[in-house]
Amino acid sequence: MRSRILYDLAGEDPELRFSSYCWRARMALRHKGLEFETIPWRYSDKEAIAFSGQGYVPVLVDGETVVFDSWTIADYLEREYPDAPSLFGGAAGQAVTRFVNEFVNAVVNPGIARLIVSDIPPLLHEKDRAYFRASREQHFGKPLEEVTANRDAEVIGFRQLLDPVRRVLANQAFLGGTSPLYADYILFGSLQWARCVSPSFELLAKDDALLGWWEQVSGVR
Amino acid sequence: MRSRILYDLAGEDPELRFSSYCWRARMALRHKGLEFETIPWRYSDKEAIAFSGQGYVPVLVDGETVVFDSWTIADYLEREYPDAPSLFGGAAGQAVTRFVNEFVNAVVNPGIARLIVSDIPPLLHEKDRAYFRASREQHFGKPLEEVTANRDAEVIGFRQLLDPVRRVLANQAFLGGTSPLYADYILFGSLQWARCVSPSFELLAKDDALLGWWEQVSGVR
Repeated sequence: MRSRILYDLAGEDPELRFSSYCWRARMALRHKGLEFETIPWRYSDKEAIAFSGQGYVPVLVDGETVVFDSWTIADYLEREYPDAPSLFGGAAGQAVTRFVNEFVNAVVNPGIARLIVSDIPPLLHEKDRAYFRASREQHFGKPLEEVTANRDAEVIGFRQLLDPVRRVLANQAFLGGTSPLYADYILFGSLQWARCVSPSFELLAKDDALLGWWEQVSGVR
Repeated sequence: MRSRILYDLAGEDPELRFSSYCWRARMALRHKGLEFETIPWRYSDKEAIAFSGQGYVPVLVDGETVVFDSWTIADYLEREYPDAPSLFGGAAGQAVTRFVNEFVNAVVNPGIARLIVSDIPPLLHEKDRAYFRASREQHFGKPLEEVTANRDAEVIGFRQLLDPVRRVLANQAFLGGTSPLYADYILFGSLQWARCVSPSFELLAKDDALLGWWEQVSGVR
């Protein structure tokens, strides 16, 4: 059997897998029904994935093939395993799913980062902490604790960003229609990121219709 | 041949067809290669479409069948004319396109309205003006001229809302992939609305990559 290994961002606890992009890759592999092992990876472990020619996870090693970048991994799995359940439902579905991908990358993930980023350093392996804090504080232009200081108020605005998703889910069970597709896993990965990093922070209100969808997507194994 | 009639929102000039939702329906009909006539309709012409059981356009009368609401019309055309070019590229494509639909309805169209709404009353048929102004001023809670007073500054924020689209179009020619699909027409309709209503207002910057896409989608006949 072909060996399949996913390099997956981890915290100090090697079981804490919090990257939204790695969640996408994991869910895509599960959706395809493919067995795989994960290797916990930390930001400092650049050498461990140097074979991929770049420095970020997810990296998938599928037999002899190396693939990185969550979208590229999904695209690869769809082409390499055409007989397994489709992630996109065809070329048009894949093309339009890219809009979901870019919406989540450009709008949802930055929105979540501003709410949870200060919770991340204590969860990281010690060797990652200084790098993470310095790079993110440069990005935000202030201490991470200041970024999230007002999050209980700012989460209201974040929740509104997901209104288009709620409007879709008022008409169909999943972004992918009657069952979850990669479009669902993209957003799911972001919510899982927040849940892993800030389990006690109420990213969504208790009565948010998205919670039921989130639960159902979690069921994909 | 089956008669096909689209009730289409018009200004005082019956040739001014500015509704973003009617643009979607027109583009969907063109994409399917279906011939149709349009009837210019004004907000006050409730009786003219009373047969549809509701009061808004687009309304399509396809032979004996009456369909209203732009999404429902696209869905109807896709099912009724399966051998004509697909608007969605399959069930998954249609499901994910709904996210584009809701994003444009919930984010893009309100964003455009705040920039152009004061330009609309002078273009309307006299019988529509009082209704339009009163209903929109109630919605915005202030005179329409105040809503748009600062639009040259506020358009910057609006343009950023379209960043996910730009990121998609950096990777593929259309939201639908290699050729335009209904996902493209949804956003196209909104830009056409702004162009029809406020032709001298620069909704997009002169160097915006979206302009090339807009032009290409315009070519669908």
